[in-house]
Amino acid sequence: MIRIGICGYGNLGKGVEAAVKNAPDMQLVAVFTRRDPSGVTTNTPGVPVVSYSALSEYRDKIDVIVNCGGSATDLPETTPYIASLFNVIDSFDTHAKIPAHFDAVNAAAKASGKIGVISVGWDPGLFSLARLYGCAVLPVGADYTFWGRGVSQGHSDAIRRIDGVLDARQYTVPVEDAMAKVRAGQTPTFTTREKHKRECYVVAKEGADLEKIERAIKTMPNYFADYNTNVTFISMEELKEKHMGIPHGGSVIRNGKTGMHLENGHTAEFRLKLDSNPEFTGSVLLAFARAASKLSAMGESGAKTVLDIAPVWLVPDDGAALRSHLL
Amino acid sequence: MIRIGICGYGNLGKGVEAAVKNAPDMQLVAVFTRRDPSGVTTNTPGVPVVSYSALSEYRDKIDVIVNCGGSATDLPETTPYIASLFNVIDSFDTHAKIPAHFDAVNAAAKASGKIGVISVGWDPGLFSLARLYGCAVLPVGADYTFWGRGVSQGHSDAIRRIDGVLDARQYTVPVEDAMAKVRAGQTPTFTTREKHKRECYVVAKEGADLEKIERAIKTMPNYFADYNTNVTFISMEELKEKHMGIPHGGSVIRNGKTGMHLENGHTAEFRLKLDSNPEFTGSVLLAFARAASKLSAMGESGAKTVLDIAPVWLVPDDGAALRSHLL
Repeated sequence: MIRIGICGYGNLGKGVEAAVKNAPDMQLVAVFTRRDPSGVTTNTPGVPVVSYSALSEYRDKIDVIVNCGGSATDLPETTPYIASLFNVIDSFDTHAKIPAHFDAVNAAAKASGKIGVISVGWDPGLFSLARLYGCAVLPVGADYTFWGRGVSQGHSDAIRRIDGVLDARQYTVPVEDAMAKVRAGQTPTFTTREKHKRECYVVAKEGADLEKIERAIKTMPNYFADYNTNVTFISMEELKEKHMGIPHGGSVIRNGKTGMHLENGHTAEFRLKLDSNPEFTGSVLLAFARAASKLSAMGESGAKTVLDIAPVWLVPDDGAALRSHLL
Repeated sequence: MIRIGICGYGNLGKGVEAAVKNAPDMQLVAVFTRRDPSGVTTNTPGVPVVSYSALSEYRDKIDVIVNCGGSATDLPETTPYIASLFNVIDSFDTHAKIPAHFDAVNAAAKASGKIGVISVGWDPGLFSLARLYGCAVLPVGADYTFWGRGVSQGHSDAIRRIDGVLDARQYTVPVEDAMAKVRAGQTPTFTTREKHKRECYVVAKEGADLEKIERAIKTMPNYFADYNTNVTFISMEELKEKHMGIPHGGSVIRNGKTGMHLENGHTAEFRLKLDSNPEFTGSVLLAFARAASKLSAMGESGAKTVLDIAPVWLVPDDGAALRSHLL
């Protein structure tokens, strides 16, 4: 059994916990938290909740730590530290800062002889793999990533910070017409507005100026100003009834040409439709935790991404079994 | 530049040749044939056509041979032989015989210190990867592979062998209703007939008994008897006008559940739509030829499949470049 520790017990940590339960070859040893451990109860009977400061005491009891902190401030600090003690997986998703994060984790993991796999999930993660396989097999072409329909926590939070807003959910929605063009093999250049739109469901405080809130949303730079944005005010009851899920998904589509004169066209699409973003992401993290454990046992060390890991290491079966029943 | 040799110059060999032309980091050194080389002309000016028996003379001039023979009799003999001299890629697709072929290529490649990547293409190949990533990240679930709409050479050949038939094309077509159910997240058990149907376009000899031909097709064991099969008799002119392409494609769909009580469902689909099956397959072969060349330069040897190769090796860019612009 591969012994797993979870660091951070929010939605993602709980998703990893569920994934461990559903994995045939893994067991959950402990959940680590920066909060007061006495205030945290896991969903897995018998699994202790331990202070993050006691992490090093588990060095011989855990094969891989799945680090479930946030990308903004948590992971840049904690993943290199954890890599100095354990094999570690994270879901770092601040694209521009991936090279620096990789270097920091690589230095720590090389020094400790452990493996750190960063930026694991579905984007970055499975979508990165789809982009890579796409441009590997169709080098003359273009790829498109569409996200949604799904809840964006960052955009929902941005709305919640507006004066007069009690709660909100924001859905990122791909523009159907744009997807249809790409699926038909076209390679257009889209503006931001042409690819995605944003649907906002907002609960306002009693007496709040709804027009002002709507204007504040639609003109918010980076988050909404460049998109066609739809704002719907709803009651707290409706929010709780219809918008408590965390669905997401999307598509990576590669259109490419082959032939001596580029006369033939091909379309490769990888599509995800997810009921629960954190549970699916947790499940992806766990598959790469399995790979980290196997590669570490073979003596490898240092930072890796999903692109550096041969698929065979992601599953319990070995190569011979896969060749006979899956290939 | 990675120096490529092509062994076998049919549709697939020509597809590889076109893929070399469209790859920024590769060059075609020679085409090898078992036919009389003087009767073969390549589409690439200046590239010699050489007898297969002279293969060993190119040991220092070629980094990877892409072996484009047939799975039935060619590849089991030629891939191990080529692996004794060169890094080699093939598209061996007789699923039941993959383990034996792997062992034969592995023995030859280990002895020579070369790499042999077998069963590369889209199925086996990219579809195998989709199946593997699918069951890695959604271990509780089921996957479905649909093929088509596309031309099956084996089924077309089977029709051509019937008395009274001049020429024929057979299209494998997924049953829309079955795909719709799976895309909606269901995990039904299908019979063969429920998943795919077969469309046959047949040119009969003048005076042939059409009813007899149609009956011979529809009752042919293994090929047609288990499917709903549609037979349309057309003229040779219509066949040449409408059915000379070699399109194909299909989908691998994984439906899985996550959550402490498996309460959330997810669907991952990888779909291909190909204008030219041999050109796309050739392009996939070439991406794995690149990987073989890189891994060989790092000292690796032996047989591999697509499952054993980290994605990073498939493209000209290195890991650092990919982390900054693709991940």
